[in-house]
Amino acid sequence: MPSITLQELNLLTTRALSNAGACDAMAAATALALVDADASGLASHGLSRLALYCTHLREGRANGQARPVVSRSKGGCCLIDAQGGLAYEAMTLAGTEAIARAKSHGIAMAGVFNSHHAGAMGYHLLPLAQAGLVAMGFTNSPAAINAWGGKKPLFGTNPIAACFPRDQGSPLIIDLSLTEVARGKIMLYAEQGKPLPPGWAVDRDGKPTTDAKTALTGSLAAIGGAKGAMLALMVELLCCALTGAAFGFENDSYFEPGNHPNIGHAMLAIDPEALAGKRTYLERIETLIMAMLADEGVRLPGSRRESASARASTEGIDIPDALFAQISRLAA
Amino acid sequence: MPSITLQELNLLTTRALSNAGACDAMAAATALALVDADASGLASHGLSRLALYCTHLREGRANGQARPVVSRSKGGCCLIDAQGGLAYEAMTLAGTEAIARAKSHGIAMAGVFNSHHAGAMGYHLLPLAQAGLVAMGFTNSPAAINAWGGKKPLFGTNPIAACFPRDQGSPLIIDLSLTEVARGKIMLYAEQGKPLPPGWAVDRDGKPTTDAKTALTGSLAAIGGAKGAMLALMVELLCCALTGAAFGFENDSYFEPGNHPNIGHAMLAIDPEALAGKRTYLERIETLIMAMLADEGVRLPGSRRESASARASTEGIDIPDALFAQISRLAA
Repeated sequence: MPSITLQELNLLTTRALSNAGACDAMAAATALALVDADASGLASHGLSRLALYCTHLREGRANGQARPVVSRSKGGCCLIDAQGGLAYEAMTLAGTEAIARAKSHGIAMAGVFNSHHAGAMGYHLLPLAQAGLVAMGFTNSPAAINAWGGKKPLFGTNPIAACFPRDQGSPLIIDLSLTEVARGKIMLYAEQGKPLPPGWAVDRDGKPTTDAKTALTGSLAAIGGAKGAMLALMVELLCCALTGAAFGFENDSYFEPGNHPNIGHAMLAIDPEALAGKRTYLERIETLIMAMLADEGVRLPGSRRESASARASTEGIDIPDALFAQISRLAA
Repeated sequence: MPSITLQELNLLTTRALSNAGACDAMAAATALALVDADASGLASHGLSRLALYCTHLREGRANGQARPVVSRSKGGCCLIDAQGGLAYEAMTLAGTEAIARAKSHGIAMAGVFNSHHAGAMGYHLLPLAQAGLVAMGFTNSPAAINAWGGKKPLFGTNPIAACFPRDQGSPLIIDLSLTEVARGKIMLYAEQGKPLPPGWAVDRDGKPTTDAKTALTGSLAAIGGAKGAMLALMVELLCCALTGAAFGFENDSYFEPGNHPNIGHAMLAIDPEALAGKRTYLERIETLIMAMLADEGVRLPGSRRESASARASTEGIDIPDALFAQISRLAA
């Protein structure tokens, strides 16, 4: 498959989403984010999700006509109702609100509920960094991780993301889920009949397993055992208890018929000027980056994403044949 | 050793700190926190640190006359200069500021710099939960964790803590460092000549090791490998770039002669009323707790601490003979 330009992919993706029932604004915002993920080397959060999004739109599991609104507001905080639509416009609104509120109050939080899969969290934090703010983002997902000591998946994979602006260089982007590995990796081992390395998953009794098929009926292991499970609980409460969204165990899997997702997201913005000041912040972050780069083998988080994205915008990207055929079919 | 009452321990600890040069308020606040840690079953963050604190006070590495002050302030944010003293009064001030600012602005952050070891972070978040606020706390420490791919410890153990209030029950307290295990545990293996389980530490070339003595010259492994190292970087930037504090690699080890610590802490407070509202928040957290407790074997984070603390306040606590002798000597 020859390289395809980002413009062409955007057009196809927008059409596919429109065909499935997304209004123009939702289709455009979603296409931009999905294509950006593939362009940034994050294919697992990009166009590989398009068919699922279209299915959810067609089935009414995502509302193609939804318009996100600010439903509550106080000082540095606001709550955004995504109205059951795809997540991307709600996340854009969350970013806009967080920027304005952090500039006024020093710190801000936008919570989102009634939402859907938000893709790569780092993407949503970039506008905040461009506005000179430190940003943090959290989201829950359908259940994947057990409470520590338990048998049943209760919490989502629950990414934690953060974005730190710099004066000259691109922002540092940290973006990670709290599972040792993604479920997709375990599916790959199951297909190939290979045993899992220890520590990746537990069976449905909460016991460690290296059998990939058994693992798929159980839960993903959290990083650091009890510690990752506790962090997943924290993310669950930030994204859902504060916003009114549904917990991981209340959201059915995206991949089987199920209920309307009511995923929650939390976005925080902090203005360095309201703490030690912008000048101190910029001196400090460059000091740490210099120490990191002086240690051979260290790469700045976000740098690979940035170089991939720059290359993609001039050269286009390679999309696997089967995926391109699928996108083309959906766009027809 | 028979049980000792918390009052008696408080008195001895306060005296020990005063003898070492702490002013009355610093001695009282520090003693309260250290004794609370032992009472809560967190002995590693309690009186076992007293001798070190006294040494630092005597050597002037901690300033016994320091009075923490709010040095910058904007809306929901403020910066606190701990003035090189022990951390506890600065953390109390951070909590007071965070509560007042979150009540006004919906969300708040108090950053602390020029500080010292803050003990168990969860302790500092409890007053925020008692005020009905969701709280998060972060701190850095002298370097312990490598940047991912690197050889040299750059980041501290960098705890993440969070505290979630409930209507009736005690708040949930999450409080964890980002290392697989504490350095103290590796020291124990080294003394006993036992090999480490894999995944606990790396040698000074950044390579995994199971030799405890080699591990002590290298770095602690972060939970989840790259993921934990990225979280440690995030905590480092929140605690130091935003506050002007010194990074892990700039703070000398507490256990050898070294520079004045300039540790940074970050405390966040969020008012549920400014997002989905208090009623929704309380319904949501109880729903998750019920699901957790319905899964046999799950214990709520903070519950063990709470029961230990309740028992200690009536029955007193057992302190190892050697530690009690040390405290008595320092108090004499």
